[in-house]
Amino acid sequence: MTTVTARTVHLLRRPDGFPTSDLFAFRERELAPPGEGEALVENLYLSVDPYMRQLMDGGWPLDAPLGRGRALGRVVASRAAGLAEGDIVFHTGGWSTHALVEPGTARAVEPAPGVPLAAYLSVLGGTGLTAYAGMRSVLDVRPGESVYVSAAAGAVGGVAGQIARLLGAERVLGSAGSAAKVAHVTERLGFTAAYDYREGGLAGWLAEQAPEGLDATLDGVGGDHLEAAIGAAKEFGRIAWVGAISQYHSAANPPAAPRNLYAVSDRSLHLRGYQVRHHMHLREEAEEWLVPHLVEGRIALDHTVVDGFDSLIDAFLGVLRGDNLGKMLVRLDAAGNEA
Amino acid sequence: MTTVTARTVHLLRRPDGFPTSDLFAFRERELAPPGEGEALVENLYLSVDPYMRQLMDGGWPLDAPLGRGRALGRVVASRAAGLAEGDIVFHTGGWSTHALVEPGTARAVEPAPGVPLAAYLSVLGGTGLTAYAGMRSVLDVRPGESVYVSAAAGAVGGVAGQIARLLGAERVLGSAGSAAKVAHVTERLGFTAAYDYREGGLAGWLAEQAPEGLDATLDGVGGDHLEAAIGAAKEFGRIAWVGAISQYHSAANPPAAPRNLYAVSDRSLHLRGYQVRHHMHLREEAEEWLVPHLVEGRIALDHTVVDGFDSLIDAFLGVLRGDNLGKMLVRLDAAGNEA
Repeated sequence: MTTVTARTVHLLRRPDGFPTSDLFAFRERELAPPGEGEALVENLYLSVDPYMRQLMDGGWPLDAPLGRGRALGRVVASRAAGLAEGDIVFHTGGWSTHALVEPGTARAVEPAPGVPLAAYLSVLGGTGLTAYAGMRSVLDVRPGESVYVSAAAGAVGGVAGQIARLLGAERVLGSAGSAAKVAHVTERLGFTAAYDYREGGLAGWLAEQAPEGLDATLDGVGGDHLEAAIGAAKEFGRIAWVGAISQYHSAANPPAAPRNLYAVSDRSLHLRGYQVRHHMHLREEAEEWLVPHLVEGRIALDHTVVDGFDSLIDAFLGVLRGDNLGKMLVRLDAAGNEA
Repeated sequence: MTTVTARTVHLLRRPDGFPTSDLFAFRERELAPPGEGEALVENLYLSVDPYMRQLMDGGWPLDAPLGRGRALGRVVASRAAGLAEGDIVFHTGGWSTHALVEPGTARAVEPAPGVPLAAYLSVLGGTGLTAYAGMRSVLDVRPGESVYVSAAAGAVGGVAGQIARLLGAERVLGSAGSAAKVAHVTERLGFTAAYDYREGGLAGWLAEQAPEGLDATLDGVGGDHLEAAIGAAKEFGRIAWVGAISQYHSAANPPAAPRNLYAVSDRSLHLRGYQVRHHMHLREEAEEWLVPHLVEGRIALDHTVVDGFDSLIDAFLGVLRGDNLGKMLVRLDAAGNEA
């Protein structure tokens, strides 16, 4: 087999504040045929996620192909034991049309009957695992509880709220950044109620909706949202804090910490940060728990899919702006004949 | 038996900022002989504690005898089953020379051989239980860990650091507000090292002393101290936050929340508030664990004792100013012939 021309993306400069598309450039590179122990993968779906904003500040090299993105692809040539031509694999060498992978860095995916392939990058992928780890392991949501999820229309928040409902939470409250998102969250994802935080008054709304206080919060925003969650927490309330989009663009000048932080001491709250990378051991358990709920329609698939590698940067910037409903995915041409 | 004239304290006005002695007045009241089910107690030791500052803002009535203070006294007359004349009891009707108690609100204390009575208001009292609950239950300090305790020369901090050392912590670091306190904490209480935070640079000192980061922190101060603890915490570090003296005088204008709070998310920290009143079930366990350490000298008794009911207000204001080394106690005349 001869070389393959892969399309890739380079980062030209580091951002100063909110990133713009001129920081990136599309490039091509020749990939040699797979060496011993390697397989060549043609990507089908690429994931774009808020955490990648942090890579722009240092994790990604300048003017070199950008890796470290979650992707689903099909093996098109293999010299690796355990990876056969035609296999579908999950790997993290994304932001390219093709990748050379090894068995240690690529995991074979066999989609369960009735589950679309793209779900393995969303509810069954990293963002779904983030939600599952938060609700099951960090917060341990119990029947009858009142649960609040910020960024409820996002990839993590939407799944988290649905998991809370299935765990028996009495109230699942969400906040989101537009009336359309609020409608999406309540009508499609089954949240008890949701609020457009751009109206102001999130704290008051939470107090109204959960007059006895919140048992558990999953916050992925920080700043005012964390402050509202602390204000509405009941005694012994738990808050899981997973990243902070509001922080990513201004590490040197972070959003104000919650003015009511002292309530953590005064009301015996648990504020616990977590990162999904420390919960990878839950992946199989999460998949076993989630798949029946997906197949039987108790969890709605929640994707915003854009087509074509050329759309990658716009899709990424769209995630940072909050344009997406649910998980933002880029579908490549090669996925045309996949589910 | 006839009535007894008890000396008491009234609060005349609520404080605006740091309290002053003119807000209080000494008064006398006649106590009737104990009714059925009651006992009359002559107090021996009274506790003055920082949390009482909060009572001044609303918990204590104006111009009425102030109760809700921890006290040790001797039963001088009893019509209550289970409370006999001469019994030593712990109760919470303090800030008076005498109190009428009932068996449900007074607990008989039988000092263990070799343990001075006053210890039952300090290391074996509420502040010691606060330290024990923090180190054992909230933080669960393990051998080899690096532990930091703020307000290390205070009644809670001094016991907490000694407990951490006995639990096998490799480093027990403390901060305090003067060179004399720093010397006290390292020389008498056995902290590994301590720092006078008034010099500035607490964060840098912690990083130097625990280059791999702090496993566990007990903070009772908040503000800059909490910020330093967050900054020095290692990944998965635990922080127990018990009250905040720096907050008590300015509820309307609290100290700035830590500017580095985002590290709670980014480094997967646990920030957990707690109150000793939710850990009363640990009292007997704590006493069983602490008494042998006390008797055999592995935990130093750490008291600042002032004499006479007239000293009560000055002693209380002294605690708020941080004048005390260890637990501040007021010894009443009746204690003259006690250990």
